[in-house]
Amino acid sequence: MPASLRILGIDPGLRVTGFGVIEKEGQRLRYIASGCVRSNPGQSLPERIATLFSGVSEVIATYHPDEAGIEKVFVNINPQSTLLLGQARGAAIAALALGNLPVAEYTALQIKQAVVGYGKAAKEQVQHMVMRLLSLSEQPKADAADALACAICHAHAGFGMR
Amino acid sequence: MPASLRILGIDPGLRVTGFGVIEKEGQRLRYIASGCVRSNPGQSLPERIATLFSGVSEVIATYHPDEAGIEKVFVNINPQSTLLLGQARGAAIAALALGNLPVAEYTALQIKQAVVGYGKAAKEQVQHMVMRLLSLSEQPKADAADALACAICHAHAGFGMR
Repeated sequence: MPASLRILGIDPGLRVTGFGVIEKEGQRLRYIASGCVRSNPGQSLPERIATLFSGVSEVIATYHPDEAGIEKVFVNINPQSTLLLGQARGAAIAALALGNLPVAEYTALQIKQAVVGYGKAAKEQVQHMVMRLLSLSEQPKADAADALACAICHAHAGFGMR
Repeated sequence: MPASLRILGIDPGLRVTGFGVIEKEGQRLRYIASGCVRSNPGQSLPERIATLFSGVSEVIATYHPDEAGIEKVFVNINPQSTLLLGQARGAAIAALALGNLPVAEYTALQIKQAVVGYGKAAKEQVQHMVMRLLSLSEQPKADAADALACAICHAHAGFGMR
């Protein structure tokens, strides 16, 4: 009987960081939880970073994942946005590090390829396939779906293959 | 007798993150410690972020600062560098958040203004004035000097004014 592996997927963002937790038992994937951590745009950047960091830490403390996958982020046309997104992602990775989680990175292309079989799939296709692959009764919201897709990608491709 | 306030200054970077700790008693500033946390360019980004995060956490655990000041970073000409720098800064801020430190942000201009009295001062002037203001017997290295300068700026301008 194969041991089960619990995987946390993260879709980082300063305003909203999505998370998704799944369990892999042999070739079977099971949905555990998903949602998102929101920061308040009215607060200072350090306060927002702190919110994201503690939010992700709380997810780890609640669901005890074994490994994590995080989406690689794009360089934005607006350099200031790139800087903000980078800081949000750094805080999320720091939370994963604090939780002693091995972290793998996946591009949006790899994630879509793993979930839909097509690297340029639309957001709706990703949401639909995440629902199918995890046997959910309804479609997860976009942020949560991307994070779950990242976890599924890790289940297929990650160092979780053991 | 005024209570003393211990301030941690951070100069964030992915390769090297400088730190400086000073103590403010009334108008007097006292040097406590400085140095830097280095990440290994041969490691994965999550591993490097983890190194910076635990390094800054260790500095906090060792020196017990009350407040922190961190340098605002520039948007680089190379967007990929901007993204990497952002992630390093996010990890440093996360460590400060974990340490329950109030964090203020200062631009390089504000820091130079506070230390040298001139926003466009050269690096060497900053190093020299940090040495003078903290009565050090020798000039601190550049990374540590920038972090100490940020702490001095916070001592003058920050919510440390109480």
